[in-house]
Amino acid sequence: MTMDKVFLYDTTLRDGAQGEGISFSDTGKVRFARLLDDFGIDYIEGGFAGSNPRDRRFFEDIRKEQLTHARVTAFGSTRRVDVDAKDDPQLAGLLAADTEWVTIYGKSWLMHVRDVLRTTADNNVQMIADTVGFLKAAGRQVFFDAEHFFDGYKDDPAYALRALGAAVREGAAGVVLCDTNGGSLPHQVFEVTRQVCAAFPGVQVGIHTHDDSGLAVANSLEGVRAGARQVQGCVNGYGERTGNANIVSVIPSLELKMGFRCVGEEKLRKLREVSLVTDDLANQRPDPRQPFVGRSAFSHKAGAHVNAIQKNPKTFEHIDPEQVGNQRHVLVSELSGNANVMMKAAELGTDVSSLDKETTRAILEEVKRRENKGYSYESADGSFKILLQKVLKKHTPFFELEGFRVIVEKRGRDEPCLSEATIKVKVNGETELTAGEGHGPVDALNAALRQALTRFYPEIEDITLTDYRVRILDPQEATRAVTRVLIESGDGVRQWGTVGVSENIIEASWQALSDSVEYKLYEDRVK
Amino acid sequence: MTMDKVFLYDTTLRDGAQGEGISFSDTGKVRFARLLDDFGIDYIEGGFAGSNPRDRRFFEDIRKEQLTHARVTAFGSTRRVDVDAKDDPQLAGLLAADTEWVTIYGKSWLMHVRDVLRTTADNNVQMIADTVGFLKAAGRQVFFDAEHFFDGYKDDPAYALRALGAAVREGAAGVVLCDTNGGSLPHQVFEVTRQVCAAFPGVQVGIHTHDDSGLAVANSLEGVRAGARQVQGCVNGYGERTGNANIVSVIPSLELKMGFRCVGEEKLRKLREVSLVTDDLANQRPDPRQPFVGRSAFSHKAGAHVNAIQKNPKTFEHIDPEQVGNQRHVLVSELSGNANVMMKAAELGTDVSSLDKETTRAILEEVKRRENKGYSYESADGSFKILLQKVLKKHTPFFELEGFRVIVEKRGRDEPCLSEATIKVKVNGETELTAGEGHGPVDALNAALRQALTRFYPEIEDITLTDYRVRILDPQEATRAVTRVLIESGDGVRQWGTVGVSENIIEASWQALSDSVEYKLYEDRVK
Repeated sequence: MTMDKVFLYDTTLRDGAQGEGISFSDTGKVRFARLLDDFGIDYIEGGFAGSNPRDRRFFEDIRKEQLTHARVTAFGSTRRVDVDAKDDPQLAGLLAADTEWVTIYGKSWLMHVRDVLRTTADNNVQMIADTVGFLKAAGRQVFFDAEHFFDGYKDDPAYALRALGAAVREGAAGVVLCDTNGGSLPHQVFEVTRQVCAAFPGVQVGIHTHDDSGLAVANSLEGVRAGARQVQGCVNGYGERTGNANIVSVIPSLELKMGFRCVGEEKLRKLREVSLVTDDLANQRPDPRQPFVGRSAFSHKAGAHVNAIQKNPKTFEHIDPEQVGNQRHVLVSELSGNANVMMKAAELGTDVSSLDKETTRAILEEVKRRENKGYSYESADGSFKILLQKVLKKHTPFFELEGFRVIVEKRGRDEPCLSEATIKVKVNGETELTAGEGHGPVDALNAALRQALTRFYPEIEDITLTDYRVRILDPQEATRAVTRVLIESGDGVRQWGTVGVSENIIEASWQALSDSVEYKLYEDRVK
Repeated sequence: MTMDKVFLYDTTLRDGAQGEGISFSDTGKVRFARLLDDFGIDYIEGGFAGSNPRDRRFFEDIRKEQLTHARVTAFGSTRRVDVDAKDDPQLAGLLAADTEWVTIYGKSWLMHVRDVLRTTADNNVQMIADTVGFLKAAGRQVFFDAEHFFDGYKDDPAYALRALGAAVREGAAGVVLCDTNGGSLPHQVFEVTRQVCAAFPGVQVGIHTHDDSGLAVANSLEGVRAGARQVQGCVNGYGERTGNANIVSVIPSLELKMGFRCVGEEKLRKLREVSLVTDDLANQRPDPRQPFVGRSAFSHKAGAHVNAIQKNPKTFEHIDPEQVGNQRHVLVSELSGNANVMMKAAELGTDVSSLDKETTRAILEEVKRRENKGYSYESADGSFKILLQKVLKKHTPFFELEGFRVIVEKRGRDEPCLSEATIKVKVNGETELTAGEGHGPVDALNAALRQALTRFYPEIEDITLTDYRVRILDPQEATRAVTRVLIESGDGVRQWGTVGVSENIIEASWQALSDSVEYKLYEDRVK
């Protein structure tokens, strides 16, 4: 039995880049294209070739690269209402991108033809035919994106099909049904796609959806189930408004649950990496809750679940996390029982089978005690590991704090606040007193601490603080409320979280900062 | 024609609270329940009544409240494998919650019966029957949540239906089909739900889905299309792993697109507010891309879309944003929010009809400028009013800051942090220099400020700070991130919020503190 192939068409660099806050550098775009090529994506839409100068640069850059699998497509629109295709500068720009494949979008909803293009139904069909014909004559392979197809079909099915027919007759390699406003429901997408596939046997039909109703992934899957064999979407669901269909969510369902072939099982294991690297290139924070690839996607918290998982992972996991390059996490939380804490300890490299009952209880009690104070270890593996070391009497302090002082000063209503910190630490009997300044008191304290330790531990220069979160635990206590600080750190190889809790935000931050440094120093020595 | 009613069952306080980082305070839970009651949610699941002490507190608290519409349900499980229902402490705890409605979950997948419960198929069915019967005899209305129903049905349809049948025969008010692992596809959910509805005519069938495949919303809608008339989910899609079905996304599609009645059109306009207030109570950052209610959900970048929108909003919007309490944003336009800002100014007592165009524009520009810096006035009426006064040149400063200094000091690893502040202010030409100490730097600064001003304005002793919240706006900037501080104050008569923004948390707190005092002094004088 051969499995049906579904072609993947990525529009992250074009539709995805319309999303608020998404921005790729020029070299980032090329790295992204190579990433997708390596992953097995079939088509990579590079941008608006005809109208955007920065997008044009990408096409120049990518021509110098050797992609092994993916085809780069240039994106544009049908010719203008009142101009011959050969005289349309936008189409000239599209050809100048010099790609074998081009994708053009055009209208298939009469309301748009009337209210936006302000032309006749016939002229719009002619524009589609002319444009496809012109590009084919210039030696291009052409996809036709039918904008607002589902709304158009609902309004006037015959006209919507006529628009597609014009593209097909002129030799388009495929027609793509777009739910441009993201308002269609899965069963509607299924039904309409089924009718299109029946009307154009043998033609590759694509599905392009938006997430305005939270249904973009479902609509993509329903499109394929109805006969579509191309899915357009963006990595991590980037895109205007609420985003495009997230291909990172679409691919595993097609591949693991519906029996289609996309990138193949082997490449699928790179899914999480593709997602993370893309976030990095686009300067986005990874969403821990993202389906399949998020850090929390296979996290288990409640005691009962963790118990069951130990007996049989299928009880609470819909797929094996490794199939998409992810892994199982056990969260340590207030609902935590024995099983959670011990699984976490094992995950962090403790040989739990060798622990006696006394030690196990001591660990549990210490975790409980700290959780009651407001500590939370869900995203603070680093602090949890240090806590474990301390209970197991295996903790080696890399430095001793003799004291610190942080001063924040403001000299007049409109003057900026100045922050300075001094810190005194002892390392191997030697005392070091240093000072630092920063954007705020914690930034200054961090600067002073690094200054003090660099001489003894030059490797701490590798640490970058990637996240700093503050949570007031009992806000009604106002300025005397207990504060929890979470810090996330990285050194290019690992990522770790640490936590601090105190009524004093500086003290809480200090705890998280010093745990971050201790964790790094410890891990470097055991590896 | 009467529209079919779909009952909404919220499990934010139980299943949602399992989500990483989600935590409600005790008073927050009650405020949340009142919010949902007011919005028209039918059932509010309050928590694990039988096993969690903090959840038990909620049931005590909520009994004192008068809810107008919603029913509070207590959550528990079927009796233990080897114990009579009447002797099961968990069920005793469930009854002790003293709610008219209870929901119990039980097994319907043989693999779970075998591998997790480690009992027989027959005994599991008996456990369901016993438990429902016991609770009915105790005068409760019972919902039965069939855990892993879709996986169970796939594995052995007859057994899955038998489990439901046991609950129905004993008088359950409804049976709920759970896709506990979140792995089912929309067409599978439709088909299975259809068969269940056919097997149990006249019984209320519910649908409870998880978002592990990014399909929870679609699966809920397909369940309803197949005959389910109860939807279980969480506000904003909170929940373990990737979250539960987001009822904020489910409701508008049911109500506006599928012709069902949920909360009604009028209440639906509060959807965005429900989403935002819930994020606030759970201390979550609102997702700007959330379907329907996110800040970006109806954002249009300048260019073709905006042009089209101006000609006809339907061209690029699937619904009218006002139907869900949201609004259109044109990303480059300065005019967005015009109406809002002016409405707010009027609400705060400014006679906006008397303002000339210049002044109106000046106000809008100042608000825009500050919002770009990270200020947010949604819960900071106090700061907004002071800002208005400043633009209208009606601001009278009650004191002038000459400077402050805050010192935080720690003398050894296990010593507490000491916080002291000195402040110098000028009032009517007189300079006052005072000091204060506190639990943290902001507490100390607050103490010093009050100390300095009391001589001139004894009424500031009436001010209590009732809430202090800190939000890191760009967490990836770590310790140099921009920080937003929100303070809520009260004086026994009024409540007001103020805001400050800076890279330095002390400076941000100072802004909010001094606005709080100025607002109080101003209001006392105009009244």
